[in-house]
Amino acid sequence: MDEQIRRFSERELISRIRDLVGQKTSVDLIKGIGDDCAVFRHNERELWLITTDTLTESVHFEPAWHKPFLLGRKTASVNISDVAAMGGSPQFALLTMAVPDQCAADWLEDFLAGFTAVLQEYKVMLIGGDTVRSGRDTVFSVTIIGSVDKERILYRSCARPDDLIWVSGPLGEAAAGLEFCRRGFLTGQAERAAKWQRLIKAHLDPVPRVRLGRLIADSGRAHAMIDLSDGLATDLAHLCRESMVGAEVYADKLPLSKLLVEAAATLRMSALDLALKGGEDYQLLFTAPATAAEVLGRLAADCHNGTIYPIGRITAGGGVFLCREGAPRQDISYQGYDHFTGR
Amino acid sequence: MDEQIRRFSERELISRIRDLVGQKTSVDLIKGIGDDCAVFRHNERELWLITTDTLTESVHFEPAWHKPFLLGRKTASVNISDVAAMGGSPQFALLTMAVPDQCAADWLEDFLAGFTAVLQEYKVMLIGGDTVRSGRDTVFSVTIIGSVDKERILYRSCARPDDLIWVSGPLGEAAAGLEFCRRGFLTGQAERAAKWQRLIKAHLDPVPRVRLGRLIADSGRAHAMIDLSDGLATDLAHLCRESMVGAEVYADKLPLSKLLVEAAATLRMSALDLALKGGEDYQLLFTAPATAAEVLGRLAADCHNGTIYPIGRITAGGGVFLCREGAPRQDISYQGYDHFTGR
Repeated sequence: MDEQIRRFSERELISRIRDLVGQKTSVDLIKGIGDDCAVFRHNERELWLITTDTLTESVHFEPAWHKPFLLGRKTASVNISDVAAMGGSPQFALLTMAVPDQCAADWLEDFLAGFTAVLQEYKVMLIGGDTVRSGRDTVFSVTIIGSVDKERILYRSCARPDDLIWVSGPLGEAAAGLEFCRRGFLTGQAERAAKWQRLIKAHLDPVPRVRLGRLIADSGRAHAMIDLSDGLATDLAHLCRESMVGAEVYADKLPLSKLLVEAAATLRMSALDLALKGGEDYQLLFTAPATAAEVLGRLAADCHNGTIYPIGRITAGGGVFLCREGAPRQDISYQGYDHFTGR
Repeated sequence: MDEQIRRFSERELISRIRDLVGQKTSVDLIKGIGDDCAVFRHNERELWLITTDTLTESVHFEPAWHKPFLLGRKTASVNISDVAAMGGSPQFALLTMAVPDQCAADWLEDFLAGFTAVLQEYKVMLIGGDTVRSGRDTVFSVTIIGSVDKERILYRSCARPDDLIWVSGPLGEAAAGLEFCRRGFLTGQAERAAKWQRLIKAHLDPVPRVRLGRLIADSGRAHAMIDLSDGLATDLAHLCRESMVGAEVYADKLPLSKLLVEAAATLRMSALDLALKGGEDYQLLFTAPATAAEVLGRLAADCHNGTIYPIGRITAGGGVFLCREGAPRQDISYQGYDHFTGR
C-alpha cells in the first residue's frame, strides 16, 4: 500500500462529516449525528428515533460460515439494538440489499425469512427499501424507526461524574465466537463446535436488549445508555466524549463467564482483551447513581431473569481508564474494533 | 452460469418481500412498500416521507469516469428525487458508506463535498449514518426524510382512466450520456465530449425536480406522480399497476431533443428506445385530467422556464402500450432497465 495516500479511520471520517454538517437546526430535529439514533419530534408524548447500519460481506459477515437465515436475523437485530440503546421501541424498517448477479434466490429467501422473523419478534413493520445488483460484494443496509417517550429517552451524552457504569450481560462472548468461526470450528467436527455453541451463537445471532432497554429508560433512574457494538473500550469512550466526562473500568468487576475464560485459553487469547476490545456483544451499557442499583437490579431480574453488572465509575476528567490491582491505570479509550480500518 | 439456480429479478424480489411483510398496519403508517417513499403521520397538517436508495460501484457508477464530487452530488440527488416524486420537501438525510481499505481520504472528501453541496442546495440536514469498510466494492446508501402537506401528497396509486400523462422534460438524455461515458468519450479528445456535454451531465449530475414536484402537488390538479429512474416503460408500468389502470404512450409526443436524436445516430442506437427504456432521467411523470393542462403548463413555465410534455393517456385496461402511426399497439410494460438483472 502506498503510504503517501492519506486514509481515514472511522472516527476521523465521522468527525469530518460532522464538520461538513455544520450547525443548522430544525424545530423538528432534537438530536442529529452523535448518538445511536437521530431523534425527531413525533407527538405530544413521544419522539421518533431513526438509525441506519450497513453489513458488508467479508467485513461484517463471512458467507462461508454465516448462513443466510442467521445473517438475516443479525442484520435486523444489530439495527434494532440501536433503538434499544435509547430506551425506545422499534416500529418500522427499511431494507436495502445490494447483491451480486450470482446470488441464488434460495439464499435470498432464507436471508429474508431470518430478517422478517426478527422483525416479527419485535413487532417491527418492513415498510420500504431498495434492491440493487452489486458488482462483487453483498451489502445490506437497514434503517430502523422507533419511538420513545420524550420524558424517558436515554442519550449517550448525559452521564454524570460519580455515576456507576453497568453492563447488561457477559462481555467478549461474541468476539470469542467470531474467533472460533474464523478458525474453522464450524466446518470441523461437530463436537468441537458444540462446546462453544453459546459463544458462536453470540456472534452469529445476537439478541438486541429491547425490553431491558425500555425498562431501564422507563425507570427514570439511569442517566445515559449506549449499546456495545464496537467493544467496551470504544463504546464507553463514545459515551464519555459525548457526555464530556471520563470513566474508570475495574478489571476485576468485568463479567467474564467461565466459558469465555476457558475459550480464551483454548484460543490462546486474553479473556480481558476479548471483553474490553471485542465487538458485537450488543449488551447495553448504562450509567446511573449508585442509589439506583437496587431498582435497576430488580428490573433486570424481572426481564428474563437477567443480571446487571457494575463495572466502573464515571469521572470528571476525560478518557477511559482500566484499573487493575497492583498495576498503573491504563488508558484504553477507543481500543475496540474499528470496522473501517479493521484494527 | 448454472441455469439450475433460481434467481430473482428486482420486481420478483420486491414482490416476494411484500408477501413476507403481510398486512400488519399501524396507526402512524399511512403507506408502506409500493411508492417512492413510505409515508407516516407527522402533525395535523403534514406527513413525513421516508425513502432509501443504494448506489453500488460498477453497477450504478464507474469510478473511472464518475469523479467523486459529482458522484457525491448524484448520490444525494437521486434520493431527493424520490421525495420530489410525492410532492414533498426533503428535510433530513442519513448516509452510510461502505468503502474498501484502499479508498483514499481525498476521494472521500470530494465525495462528501459533493454530497453535502446538494444537501445545502435543497436545505437538507445530514443527521446520521454509518461508515464501514467493505471487502471490494464501494457502496453508498442514503435515507432521506421529507415532509409534505397531507392534503397535497401525490401517490403513484391514484391515476384515473382518461387522465393525461405528462413528463417534466426531455427523455433518454441520461441514457445517451451513460453510453458516451461507456464508450470512452470522457477520456478521449475533449472536443469529442464537448458536443455531448448536456447528455453526459444528465447522467453524471442529474437534477431532482423538487420545486416543480411541490408546485404540481400544491396545485391540487394532478392525481398521481412518480419520478423516472428506471425508464419510462418501467416507471409508468409501476404507476399503472399501483393505480390498477393501463396507459397509452404516443411515440410522436415523446420529448426527444434534437441533441438526443443526433446522439442516437452517432451511437447507432434508437432514440425512441433511449427515451422509453433508458433510466435515470429523474424527470417527473404525472397524470391529471386534460382540463388541468393550462394550469400545470403555467406552473412549469414559472419554475425555471420549464415545459411539460403530454405523452399519453391513462386507460381502464392494464398494461403500458406504445402507439405509433401505422403500427399495431405494442406492450412495453417494464421494458426499462432492471438494475437487479442488468437487463
